[in-house]
Amino acid sequence: MISPSAFALPTGAPKHILCVGAAVLDTLFRVPTMPTGQGKVLPYDMLQIAEGMASSAAYAIARLGGRASLWGAVGHDETGERIVRDLADAGIQTDGMLRVEGARSAISTILVDDDGERLIVPFYDPKLHEHTRIVVPKDIAAFDAVLVDVRWPELAQQVLKMARAEGKPAILDGDVARDGVIEQLAPQATHIVFSEPAAHRLTGADNFAEMAALLKRRFAQSFICVTAGAAGSFWFDDQSDNLLHSPTITVKAIDTLAAGDIFHGAFALAIAEGRHPAEAIQFSSVAAAMKCEVFGGRTGAPTRDEVLDRLSSFTTPRQA
Amino acid sequence: MISPSAFALPTGAPKHILCVGAAVLDTLFRVPTMPTGQGKVLPYDMLQIAEGMASSAAYAIARLGGRASLWGAVGHDETGERIVRDLADAGIQTDGMLRVEGARSAISTILVDDDGERLIVPFYDPKLHEHTRIVVPKDIAAFDAVLVDVRWPELAQQVLKMARAEGKPAILDGDVARDGVIEQLAPQATHIVFSEPAAHRLTGADNFAEMAALLKRRFAQSFICVTAGAAGSFWFDDQSDNLLHSPTITVKAIDTLAAGDIFHGAFALAIAEGRHPAEAIQFSSVAAAMKCEVFGGRTGAPTRDEVLDRLSSFTTPRQA
Repeated sequence: MISPSAFALPTGAPKHILCVGAAVLDTLFRVPTMPTGQGKVLPYDMLQIAEGMASSAAYAIARLGGRASLWGAVGHDETGERIVRDLADAGIQTDGMLRVEGARSAISTILVDDDGERLIVPFYDPKLHEHTRIVVPKDIAAFDAVLVDVRWPELAQQVLKMARAEGKPAILDGDVARDGVIEQLAPQATHIVFSEPAAHRLTGADNFAEMAALLKRRFAQSFICVTAGAAGSFWFDDQSDNLLHSPTITVKAIDTLAAGDIFHGAFALAIAEGRHPAEAIQFSSVAAAMKCEVFGGRTGAPTRDEVLDRLSSFTTPRQA
Repeated sequence: MISPSAFALPTGAPKHILCVGAAVLDTLFRVPTMPTGQGKVLPYDMLQIAEGMASSAAYAIARLGGRASLWGAVGHDETGERIVRDLADAGIQTDGMLRVEGARSAISTILVDDDGERLIVPFYDPKLHEHTRIVVPKDIAAFDAVLVDVRWPELAQQVLKMARAEGKPAILDGDVARDGVIEQLAPQATHIVFSEPAAHRLTGADNFAEMAALLKRRFAQSFICVTAGAAGSFWFDDQSDNLLHSPTITVKAIDTLAAGDIFHGAFALAIAEGRHPAEAIQFSSVAAAMKCEVFGGRTGAPTRDEVLDRLSSFTTPRQA
């Protein structure tokens, strides 16, 4: 068991993480029960918020005392301006956001029911991520680590490659993506954190330990972790050559939307702070679990102090 | 059978209709099949548009060559500004729209599947319609008729009452509403056009002719019509004291969203132009049916010329 005090914010300038990928205007409707077909369902709560994988991770970083910059693309439209402003208001540096002429900003509607189940209806304009930018060393000089999702693969690949070349942590959010994207990005990543659906899809395995082992064999050059929601995380410890399981704290899940993203953001910050992966996973697991206790997508991301308070209930990783 | 040429735009100034009620920012997602529970559904088309019962009716009036003013309420927020601007761009006069401090603008997500079925998730802030305005005769002096929906009952009641007192058509869109609203508004209306779900709810009857007969008995002072979608309309002819059935044209329905509203708008305009209810229903039925042939909520509302072209396929009303 790692002492909670070990996770205190380091002295000195906060670590600065570049996040690359999704920026979406989400509309969250809270409904008593999920609809099962056509008709009308009346939500009892509603929230509109800019989020998305990389955006929510960036928010988690900012909440946890780090600095986060976001490179993402929005349309040259009202929704795009709203996304950028909302993220900037959340403490994320958005000067690297791209406005794409002739593309529509990404939007998504999400129904969350009283069991925490979700129905997601995402709309992405393929034109949003058709272009990329050339990434040169000075573009990433200011960052201590990079974290990319699968939404903008061409840019993500360049960013990972450049970070790795510069000796910086190059972290991939290994979520479900179109065919070939994980294979395109993984070789450039120093760390990959897979979601359970993506790990299942890539390996065909149903067992978390088996998924992690197969993924480690396939992407041997990277640190490998598979997140398993309430079941914790399964990861390969390169020091001991062992597959380990890190449990997480038990919470009553109200809204699991963006929980994975909060995990990735917290993980990237902890790695940038120089922590061992075991510590980074412990920290991220608690942050992600705490997020699930409140309705509101990324807005549930806890602060550093809130995480430290909860870390005392955490147990140490053990062999899987 | 009424000759299509009878429906040509009258000479002189276009009739001006005041519409009172809903103004919502709708997000329409077009999906291959309706979701049946939690998970993810990927839309292949998306449209964001300001509409709602009174708003869509106002749009139909403008498309059909009339003038439409809208009295509705939005929040003092970005979505509210977007709603008002979108409706103004659609040719509706919006200077009577109210911005309510401390209320959130109404939004709605609608999934439309390839069978034209719909799942609607509407969010209304009750604070939007808490206040009303005092309506004096000069407020409605410019209008040739009024059309109200059930969204803002306190204002709708005043507008209907004033119009009736001034000898102007006072038309009620009798859609499903909270208990007591139809009873509050109906006595002030000169004409009531009920939707099938509302007519069923008010009468308990399953048969359209019976619904219309029971509603006429209950609201004897008003012209009564029940719209029945592809089955046409059932209405009580006060001249002959007969219940009549007006069939409608056959269309392949792609999107029935706002079809009822287009009917109400066309009906109000035709009545304001001095047409007999039989003619008004014929005109409105064709306009509403044509709307269903294209995806996009109210945007499918046809122009006057398009309706005239299609009227030739219409048949005459007969006893129900």
